[in-house]
Amino acid sequence: MSNVSFIGGGSFGTALAILLAEKGNTVSIYNRNKEVVDDININRRNDKYIRNLEISSNIVAFNNLEKAIENAEYVVLAVPSHTIRSICRSLKDKISENTIIISIAKGIEEHTDKRLSTVIKEELSNPIVILSGPSHAEEVVLKLPTTLVVTSECMECASEVQSLFMTSYFRVYTNEDLVGVEVGGAVKNIIALAAGILDGLGYGDNTKAALMTRGMKEISRIGLALGGKEETFYGLTGMGDLIVTCTSKHSRNRKAGLLIGSGMPVDEAIKEIGMVVEGVKACRAFYELKEKMKVSMPITDILYKVLFEKKEPKLGIQELMNREKKSEIF
Amino acid sequence: MSNVSFIGGGSFGTALAILLAEKGNTVSIYNRNKEVVDDININRRNDKYIRNLEISSNIVAFNNLEKAIENAEYVVLAVPSHTIRSICRSLKDKISENTIIISIAKGIEEHTDKRLSTVIKEELSNPIVILSGPSHAEEVVLKLPTTLVVTSECMECASEVQSLFMTSYFRVYTNEDLVGVEVGGAVKNIIALAAGILDGLGYGDNTKAALMTRGMKEISRIGLALGGKEETFYGLTGMGDLIVTCTSKHSRNRKAGLLIGSGMPVDEAIKEIGMVVEGVKACRAFYELKEKMKVSMPITDILYKVLFEKKEPKLGIQELMNREKKSEIF
Repeated sequence: MSNVSFIGGGSFGTALAILLAEKGNTVSIYNRNKEVVDDININRRNDKYIRNLEISSNIVAFNNLEKAIENAEYVVLAVPSHTIRSICRSLKDKISENTIIISIAKGIEEHTDKRLSTVIKEELSNPIVILSGPSHAEEVVLKLPTTLVVTSECMECASEVQSLFMTSYFRVYTNEDLVGVEVGGAVKNIIALAAGILDGLGYGDNTKAALMTRGMKEISRIGLALGGKEETFYGLTGMGDLIVTCTSKHSRNRKAGLLIGSGMPVDEAIKEIGMVVEGVKACRAFYELKEKMKVSMPITDILYKVLFEKKEPKLGIQELMNREKKSEIF
Repeated sequence: MSNVSFIGGGSFGTALAILLAEKGNTVSIYNRNKEVVDDININRRNDKYIRNLEISSNIVAFNNLEKAIENAEYVVLAVPSHTIRSICRSLKDKISENTIIISIAKGIEEHTDKRLSTVIKEELSNPIVILSGPSHAEEVVLKLPTTLVVTSECMECASEVQSLFMTSYFRVYTNEDLVGVEVGGAVKNIIALAAGILDGLGYGDNTKAALMTRGMKEISRIGLALGGKEETFYGLTGMGDLIVTCTSKHSRNRKAGLLIGSGMPVDEAIKEIGMVVEGVKACRAFYELKEKMKVSMPITDILYKVLFEKKEPKLGIQELMNREKKSEIF
């Protein structure tokens, strides 16, 4: 059994913490918000992020980072992508160099356009493992069958993390394609935001299936350009996660899109969600990246205009639909 | 403007007939059921197959096949896959050899394991075009943006059919991969049935996304073995149609699975649906085919046992989830 520390106490982090605690591991959660820490320690709940659960008594929450990571063999970065660098900086000199860092965030660093494992690597010399896949926290805590993927530059570390998390309902695969896993997980949030906008505009399942299928092409095109593998994009961390994010009622990115499609201004929609909407940040980052790399991503283009240039969502969709007739494969 | 005859008057056929009539074409529908014919001609409705629509006055329904196809430049086969051969036989010597046959059925002939275009070709010497893609009739009649694909051994004929159907909300692409389009459209119904069973058992979106992602691999494996192209399986007629069939409330295959997953015996569930459940027939056909061709299709395997060997659906799912830990790509 191991000592595992979670940095951040969002919905997915909390769900994973419960899973590991139930497997008999010693689990701590660091959160900068005193109310969240108290809610976990006193009420055995985490109502700010995820409702209707009972947090196991062998999980202890801390407001103090150093205490939270004391003796940690694994540190799980369960924070939004834009805080990864600063969190890693604050971990520096505090954790043992053998501690395995596990990242569950999905995104890309704005302005630098760096993958999150690259950001972590620039700040810490620890082994890094990425855990990703179609896995809404709300269903993990209900023990509904869920599949994920671990990847790393150190596949031995990835296998270790696979064993750490694997249960009868939580099935973890290994995949050596670190780039493919990270890029797929980040871009799918862009497509999910667009899918939510379709829902908000009152379009149906036919339209959404078309958007998701064409969205997969965008994931695959930019992913290949960045060095990932096609088979990864069409696996659990690409297509699988795209499906769950575009269709599930639990998806924050889809919900944000839904509000925008219903006519709410972008800023208000993000505020209404109350948690980080990764797709908004990812859209800006990948818009810049695809311009630089000259990769065609028409859905990302349109979403960028909707999010940052006040384009009417409905006009954007019409633009996507009303192009010349052509061949499907081009 | 053209003369177009629909054979069969199911939900998708009726939706397409309305679309073509509104574009100004002369449209007839043949149905062997006198009540359906009367409902169309007298009430301008087709309540047996699709609710809440108004059938354009320039559509005429017939109970007599010969009258229905008089002067037809296009004959649309809008019938279940298992009746394609007998319908083609009854068309023989009745239609001009230049009439383009358009097939919208998705399946494979049982026992012979032949694709539907092959079946049609064996019975008629006309040009054949397949129209396929993520397109629930209920949304087409609402003019919600929908994308489809046409394919044929005669791509000139396919382009003609593309122009025939294309509207601002109904976007038709061409694709030269006839085998890939037909196989994808048939196998996705197997996966949709299995997805419905998951829903019936109360599993969540995480599980379904995993099933769909692994299901795509089965489509792709058997499709490649049969001579289709990977890019087609991951396009609108494969992945797109899989998504819409697995997630939409309009899908008959998913609904049948849902009833089976909820504990209803298979025969009763099919009866309850009241229309042909293509996935049941496809499961039997592809089970035989994959055994013959030695292609791995674990979801099709399990579904076959549930449908035809009284295996408990829940045990089947557990079997899929509880395999050894392994790599994602194998």
